[in-house]
Amino acid sequence: MDILVIGAAGMLGRKLCEALSQKGLIGGRQIAHLTMADAFPAEKSPNPEFSTDVLVGDIGEPSFAQQLLASRPQIIFHLAAIVSGQAEKDFETGYRTNLDGARHLFEAVRWRQYQPRLIFSSSIAVFGKPFPTVIGEDYVTRPLTSYGTQKAMAELLLNDFSRREIFDGVALRLPTICVRPGKPNQAASGFFSNIIREPLKGEPALLPVSREARHWFASPRSALRFLLRAAEMDTGDLGSRRTLNMPGLSVTVGEMIESLERVGGPDAVGLIETRLDPFIQKIVDNWPQKLDASRAEALGFSAEKNFDEIIRAHIEDETAR
Amino acid sequence: MDILVIGAAGMLGRKLCEALSQKGLIGGRQIAHLTMADAFPAEKSPNPEFSTDVLVGDIGEPSFAQQLLASRPQIIFHLAAIVSGQAEKDFETGYRTNLDGARHLFEAVRWRQYQPRLIFSSSIAVFGKPFPTVIGEDYVTRPLTSYGTQKAMAELLLNDFSRREIFDGVALRLPTICVRPGKPNQAASGFFSNIIREPLKGEPALLPVSREARHWFASPRSALRFLLRAAEMDTGDLGSRRTLNMPGLSVTVGEMIESLERVGGPDAVGLIETRLDPFIQKIVDNWPQKLDASRAEALGFSAEKNFDEIIRAHIEDETAR
Repeated sequence: MDILVIGAAGMLGRKLCEALSQKGLIGGRQIAHLTMADAFPAEKSPNPEFSTDVLVGDIGEPSFAQQLLASRPQIIFHLAAIVSGQAEKDFETGYRTNLDGARHLFEAVRWRQYQPRLIFSSSIAVFGKPFPTVIGEDYVTRPLTSYGTQKAMAELLLNDFSRREIFDGVALRLPTICVRPGKPNQAASGFFSNIIREPLKGEPALLPVSREARHWFASPRSALRFLLRAAEMDTGDLGSRRTLNMPGLSVTVGEMIESLERVGGPDAVGLIETRLDPFIQKIVDNWPQKLDASRAEALGFSAEKNFDEIIRAHIEDETAR
Repeated sequence: MDILVIGAAGMLGRKLCEALSQKGLIGGRQIAHLTMADAFPAEKSPNPEFSTDVLVGDIGEPSFAQQLLASRPQIIFHLAAIVSGQAEKDFETGYRTNLDGARHLFEAVRWRQYQPRLIFSSSIAVFGKPFPTVIGEDYVTRPLTSYGTQKAMAELLLNDFSRREIFDGVALRLPTICVRPGKPNQAASGFFSNIIREPLKGEPALLPVSREARHWFASPRSALRFLLRAAEMDTGDLGSRRTLNMPGLSVTVGEMIESLERVGGPDAVGLIETRLDPFIQKIVDNWPQKLDASRAEALGFSAEKNFDEIIRAHIEDETAR
């Protein structure tokens, strides 16, 4: 199998490439080649059992997508994106990367005339207020950010290209990934991870929203499992509905902090300082709090059942290495 | 007021320009200038009380939109589209005109940095099966045609541009317009009009679907009223939801034919020949049958209450001239 990961230098892309390198298999089949593409040079995973290329380029340029498809990869993971906060502040870069980038990739597949599996990381930001308590897949995508708009547009495009059998697409509406390892990024959702990760390291963290803020989460470990499941699943079960609400956990910031206290102790909680930021609060207020992911669950996707599990997964996966 | 109509050579664009010429007013304000733009030369409306330009160009070219906005029109009607049947058969032309055309226009407004009212003719084809008996505005847009995909994507874009106050957008999900005057076009929905219009003229017409087929209709007269209402309404009432389900009438082909018999007589009905076309039947089967347009109705949009009215409007507006 020849595999292409676009966004390979990102948090999730890196984890995916590491997992592929460690397993050497996908869907029970040997991996022969992996292309790691990003706007920045991705670090090659250690000890790969197959050949790996690292490509650097701009997915906003049509020629880059054409270059990426030269080897006709059978499985394509498109994870590259400008994050929500940045897409809101920088109109043009957001549309260029998040919408045009997806379209250039889809069009490049069309010109190659083969039908790879194409997995696209969408987001719960496709939904905007007002919404029901639990958001099902029949609920309208009415995003209130440019990021959500770009993701919703790419979902529609993926669905049409899949319907026309140009590729075999699956769009995953990922919950907010928490606890993200590494450094804070420009995502408006970054603080959700910061307030857990930093205190666990003995570092202070700022909380820019109220403790009542409720949101929908999954761990990086679950997100990785989602991607692999999407690569391996029988897409015949999807019918004409190629977008899936991914499973997650609906908790408030207050409940997250209670989990942190149980797992990390009261000293950790003491490192969180509340400093309300209306810009972040407004974005978060417009985000969904709970999704109905029953269709994905029936198709073999699953996530954590409580936030303590999410914190323990973070400690196991990140601090033990 | 300076007004721009894109798609001015189309059925609805022509009616709109005629109405503007006859009234000389929009929203109670004097019209000073009208630009009629299309891929084909639009016929200037007779006796205009204001100056009129006819521009010919390709909305798929970014430079055409820039040209159209040179005079900074305060009200823009974007009605230009490749119709559903053609967009399904010609992938590239459909995306180029229906998606890129809208985006070029929206971007041209962004570069001009002024905030015109922008009215976009969307379609009920944004909805696809499975759907509830009555489709509300909270229902997912899951189109099953490329045309519907392009319209749904343009709606998302219009919403984001309006949210960012780049323009003051309103997207109208028009019912299938029936009875369309003139010659059949390539729209998959064309037969709905043919089976009424042609027999009323004493001409035969082909029915390519079963009499049980149910669909959602409004007359050209209502569609024209919708456009004018969208130009005049207070968009403050729309909030962040810039797309409106337009009112219409849910009837079956069988009920349409019963109306034709009442209004046009049994001889007219005898001119309809059923010749099933699976390509058309499949497209129509995926179209919605009834929408909830209560939000639009509360905002002053209204349509016919029975199909006899629709046929009589056609006779008054078309055959009496």
